[in-house]
Amino acid sequence: MEDGSAGPRMETNSTYNIPLVQRSSRENEMVCIFGTGDFGKALGSKMLQCGYDVVFGSRSPNNANLVPKGSEVLSHHEAAQRSKIIFLAIQRDHYSFLSRLAHALQGKILVDVSNNLKLNQYPESNAEYLAQLVPGAEVVKAFNTVSAWALQSGTLDASRQVFVCGHDSKSKQMVMEIVRTLGLTPLDQGSLMAAKEVENYPLQLFPMWKIPMYISSVLAAVIFLYCVVTEVIYSYVTTGEDYTYAIMIAIPNRVFPIVSLILLALVYLAGIIAAIIQLYRGTKYSRFPDWLDKWMLCRKQLGLVALGYAFLHVIYTLVIPIRYYVRWWMNNWAITQIKNNATAPFDPNYAWRSDAYLAPGILGFFFYVLLGITSLPSVSNIVNWREFRFVQSKLGYLTLILCTGHTLVYGWDRFIYGPFYRWHLPPAFVLSLIIPCAVLSLKFILIAPCVDRIITQIRQGWERNSKNPKKDISENGKTTV
Amino acid sequence: MEDGSAGPRMETNSTYNIPLVQRSSRENEMVCIFGTGDFGKALGSKMLQCGYDVVFGSRSPNNANLVPKGSEVLSHHEAAQRSKIIFLAIQRDHYSFLSRLAHALQGKILVDVSNNLKLNQYPESNAEYLAQLVPGAEVVKAFNTVSAWALQSGTLDASRQVFVCGHDSKSKQMVMEIVRTLGLTPLDQGSLMAAKEVENYPLQLFPMWKIPMYISSVLAAVIFLYCVVTEVIYSYVTTGEDYTYAIMIAIPNRVFPIVSLILLALVYLAGIIAAIIQLYRGTKYSRFPDWLDKWMLCRKQLGLVALGYAFLHVIYTLVIPIRYYVRWWMNNWAITQIKNNATAPFDPNYAWRSDAYLAPGILGFFFYVLLGITSLPSVSNIVNWREFRFVQSKLGYLTLILCTGHTLVYGWDRFIYGPFYRWHLPPAFVLSLIIPCAVLSLKFILIAPCVDRIITQIRQGWERNSKNPKKDISENGKTTV
Amino acid sequence: MEDGSAGPRMETNSTYNIPLVQRSSRENEMVCIFGTGDFGKALGSKMLQCGYDVVFGSRSPNNANLVPKGSEVLSHHEAAQRSKIIFLAIQRDHYSFLSRLAHALQGKILVDVSNNLKLNQYPESNAEYLAQLVPGAEVVKAFNTVSAWALQSGTLDASRQVFVCGHDSKSKQMVMEIVRTLGLTPLDQGSLMAAKEVENYPLQLFPMWKIPMYISSVLAAVIFLYCVVTEVIYSYVTTGEDYTYAIMIAIPNRVFPIVSLILLALVYLAGIIAAIIQLYRGTKYSRFPDWLDKWMLCRKQLGLVALGYAFLHVIYTLVIPIRYYVRWWMNNWAITQIKNNATAPFDPNYAWRSDAYLAPGILGFFFYVLLGITSLPSVSNIVNWREFRFVQSKLGYLTLILCTGHTLVYGWDRFIYGPFYRWHLPPAFVLSLIIPCAVLSLKFILIAPCVDRIITQIRQGWERNSKNPKKDISENGKTTV
Repeated sequence: MEDGSAGPRMETNSTYNIPLVQRSSRENEMVCIFGTGDFGKALGSKMLQCGYDVVFGSRSPNNANLVPKGSEVLSHHEAAQRSKIIFLAIQRDHYSFLSRLAHALQGKILVDVSNNLKLNQYPESNAEYLAQLVPGAEVVKAFNTVSAWALQSGTLDASRQVFVCGHDSKSKQMVMEIVRTLGLTPLDQGSLMAAKEVENYPLQLFPMWKIPMYISSVLAAVIFLYCVVTEVIYSYVTTGEDYTYAIMIAIPNRVFPIVSLILLALVYLAGIIAAIIQLYRGTKYSRFPDWLDKWMLCRKQLGLVALGYAFLHVIYTLVIPIRYYVRWWMNNWAITQIKNNATAPFDPNYAWRSDAYLAPGILGFFFYVLLGITSLPSVSNIVNWREFRFVQSKLGYLTLILCTGHTLVYGWDRFIYGPFYRWHLPPAFVLSLIIPCAVLSLKFILIAPCVDRIITQIRQGWERNSKNPKKDISENGKTTV
Repeated sequence: MEDGSAGPRMETNSTYNIPLVQRSSRENEMVCIFGTGDFGKALGSKMLQCGYDVVFGSRSPNNANLVPKGSEVLSHHEAAQRSKIIFLAIQRDHYSFLSRLAHALQGKILVDVSNNLKLNQYPESNAEYLAQLVPGAEVVKAFNTVSAWALQSGTLDASRQVFVCGHDSKSKQMVMEIVRTLGLTPLDQGSLMAAKEVENYPLQLFPMWKIPMYISSVLAAVIFLYCVVTEVIYSYVTTGEDYTYAIMIAIPNRVFPIVSLILLALVYLAGIIAAIIQLYRGTKYSRFPDWLDKWMLCRKQLGLVALGYAFLHVIYTLVIPIRYYVRWWMNNWAITQIKNNATAPFDPNYAWRSDAYLAPGILGFFFYVLLGITSLPSVSNIVNWREFRFVQSKLGYLTLILCTGHTLVYGWDRFIYGPFYRWHLPPAFVLSLIIPCAVLSLKFILIAPCVDRIITQIRQGWERNSKNPKKDISENGKTTV
Repeated sequence: MEDGSAGPRMETNSTYNIPLVQRSSRENEMVCIFGTGDFGKALGSKMLQCGYDVVFGSRSPNNANLVPKGSEVLSHHEAAQRSKIIFLAIQRDHYSFLSRLAHALQGKILVDVSNNLKLNQYPESNAEYLAQLVPGAEVVKAFNTVSAWALQSGTLDASRQVFVCGHDSKSKQMVMEIVRTLGLTPLDQGSLMAAKEVENYPLQLFPMWKIPMYISSVLAAVIFLYCVVTEVIYSYVTTGEDYTYAIMIAIPNRVFPIVSLILLALVYLAGIIAAIIQLYRGTKYSRFPDWLDKWMLCRKQLGLVALGYAFLHVIYTLVIPIRYYVRWWMNNWAITQIKNNATAPFDPNYAWRSDAYLAPGILGFFFYVLLGITSLPSVSNIVNWREFRFVQSKLGYLTLILCTGHTLVYGWDRFIYGPFYRWHLPPAFVLSLIIPCAVLSLKFILIAPCVDRIITQIRQGWERNSKNPKKDISENGKTTV
């Protein structure tokens, strides 16, 4: 209730305001809904608006005043006989009464719209349980991702997709047709065995983001502590200076770019490890280890988390001149020079250095943002496979090179400059370069002509240890007979 | 003409360049179009490309040279007999001749594609008027959101959605099938009573944005004037200083964050008021007052306007060090110190303060942007209801807390520091904190366990004054029998 | 392999993990796939999951262990007899054997999924070649944009669209139904003549972006050289100063805004030229010259490239105060004043000037970003034609006016101030104003009531030289009978 937002207003208004007083006398398709709770009523109301005739099945058909105008309420038994399709807007706990109706439900399509309160609450999915209860009916799982509120208000922002699964194709087709008529998008999920997953879906909270978020949080925490030790505590111990205010801006602004760079490198490390495994095994036909599969499937999320950190780094950097510390320091610099009567001459070397580290950083961020935009679903939907690969691979590596270069030039002579090695610990940014440099070096080896040729062959189906070497060279994995 | 942009090029090219010289001899579905104007021709041309046979009905069937190659032109009467479906690409003013064709149109599907020049131009919609004129035919409203230019050039960016409505389901299905075949997305809008709204749709100009834009403009104007009075005019009256240049950057940069914060708070105030009303009434089954309904439906737009202002605030803030005034002031600070021989020592307190107000501001903006990205239709389409709630509610409140914190720390001691109260008026940012603090306090009360439990019960269907207390605990509004 | 990203996880998991051990005994639709390579197997596997029965046709039906569990492998001849629809997952080079199967393929639907390695590799498309080989079958082109990897892993980010073309509508409908059942989006591309383009599609690399990228690169290179000559080389020749570090930040930050402004003006110049041509010809019914057609079709891309340059300009500008050169210069300014004992008084004129050029720049960038967001496919899909025109035309011109104003105020007195004309060459920003100012002046003339009236008439179908002046006033190109 605290949230939710208006969808395309067209729909909003039409489903919200148009009274359905006058019904045409023509014969419409009849649908039956068991259950007159919130969801049943919302679904019935929406269906009436979309031209269906609706009959409700209820334990107590007499509180008919509650159902949407234009629909009927009958007993379960009578209602079932009126329609080929029956929506069960009831909770799993109450399914048991359906076994008594088995005869009336023979040959019907039962649409299970139920949800659970917890992931994997029951051993089998609600829909499979229903199929066992009423073996004579076809069970189709659908609509569980749509909320009553969304149906009523027409604000379907978060739930336009309706996952549909079931054993019988024809039944699924009929349900998917209804989904389309209601203005929603059906997505066929296969047989009823997918029902468990379909039921778990609305209970999930960004499952693909968990690993990337976890990795980035741990990384950020470790680097934050490292920086606090080598900067704040070191300053305090050695000179007694109070540098604690650095934990607000200065240290986060070290942590963010480091995490971002490492995550970006991890995105590409997965592909490199996959290529090395394929090279080593000499075939593409054996499966990758599970951890690598998972890693490869969450690369998009890893990359977007990396972009988030990069975004923060950019803003934290741009506010630098507004900070009191920096203003005071600039001011102090001028005053000190005056007092010592020693003006610092302009050093073009320093000008080169400061500009040369900023430029690749900005360009890197630009391509980073471009990568982010192309991973928006609506953008990635209209590019073809070759374009998608070009953006994600070519532009991705360009981004990695620019960001690594940015960090290297930022380092400049600090890599070897003693005072930066406090307590013999290297500055954090030095550590951040390890993975990116390794990724870029390995990639450099992998694209060497002699290695690249072998990988290309393997990806086209060639197998090193195969007796009958089949070869199916083709762009897209299309293959020979 | 001045604008428009290329859609997915695939389509662009295919509809634009491929000549349709050779038609297959097989029987295609035949469609009839009345009217050989721009829209009729564009529609016919597109249909030919998608495999339909097209016949035009015209008053003067002899200027056949104008219609797309591959189609025929006949008199209205003859053309009508060739096809089950007839598209009326004619203006409402000319519909009257159709009543003479009533016999030929008996049992046909008439697709009304017409638009009007003004909102609510006629008492009844064009489609309903048509249905009265030709009672023997099934009228379906469709295609009015698509322009001739878009059909011809294939640049359908702004109009891929086709709203379809009509009394007869079968007729609608047939029209929707054609819509899909043309590569467009049909959206069923219910019975012909929705036609008025469908006809008004292409004449609307961001109706959901009107209230948020109005509120934000009024707020911005009022705060701008307030700042001009307390800063520019006050300076001039008391010290004679010319501070007018502040109206370009300095004062807008006070107005933007204030408007942004207030709008963001208003987004969440709606939900809080709704919760209080439900608590007071003890039920969720009575409708909210109309103003609250409207408010809740435009929260997304309110939030996005707030994000716009926040974006402007960020850039206005980041240019601060580039401004001449600020550079001069920095410079003057150093010179004054030298002249007075009194160097300001470094004050860690000030460093804390300046960093502590910047950090939550940056983080707040980061989450603000995240909220904005998730409200993009293609992103919100792939998150489930729970995830959408998480982002919009949890992250939304986090953003509000961070931005309110940012403003509070910015204020620091200025809340009580006399000189900032010019003419006894508090600085504008003090006023901006009223609504956010109220929202956060009320939210804090509402999530207190004892209150939260009651709200949860109410939202699950419990009613305080109900005699037969029904209870339908379920995640998604699914309910008991 | 190096890239790709996880699609909606729902699908990912369900297609990835769910074993298909138990098949229902009911009769499912049977599909046949010729070819047991990567693509054939991936397609078969996906179809099994979506409820189809799959039979593979193979030269050597005995290596049945390779095909997905639940499917059969037969000889081509036997397999063909089992299904109405046959997918050819084989390369064009191997099509020849199909002519021997002509009898078995009589009346079947052959789905050509093949791709080529190069654009226009063969004189006719693979699908048309197939239609010639097997004249008794209906050939439908489809699925060539989908990769085996995407089908297997369910990560369909880059390839949810399936282009379908073919001569026979019924066959296309059947194939499109399968596409929908697999959770993909079919897009009807018309007759088999579109096959060539459909086959070229996955080999294209951003064809609509080529011209805008080319124009912007040439412009950027020319302006960069111009700036290097008038600033770096001029400084070196006249004063011997080493100003080379400017090529990292300072000069790019002149190039980016200039390119951005010119590109933005070019977006609107196309529409203005179109209007002038229509005015001159007195009709809208003659086609524009080809170059203008192409220009108008790539305006969106031009505008987005312009936005990219504007984005870079903004960040390059915001880092200014961080640069060593700027810090040194600020510092030096203070020291010089002290030494000369001549403090610069505050000049409100300068404050006005610096603020007055920043403000329209920021606002211009804000509207620029807004334009970019509304051109995201998912956003432009939910606005109607009038709203799209409003944003792209009204807001677009507002952006152009703000950005031109930003540049004019930036120039201020430098337009006439001698020292800026090095070697008698005007500063680059002066040149950048030519096209924008021309566009705005012409637009100003075109919206003058007397001119605007004629253009409106022409766009409503009026022709100056027409003998029978027909008039079809309507908002959307809908027209008279």
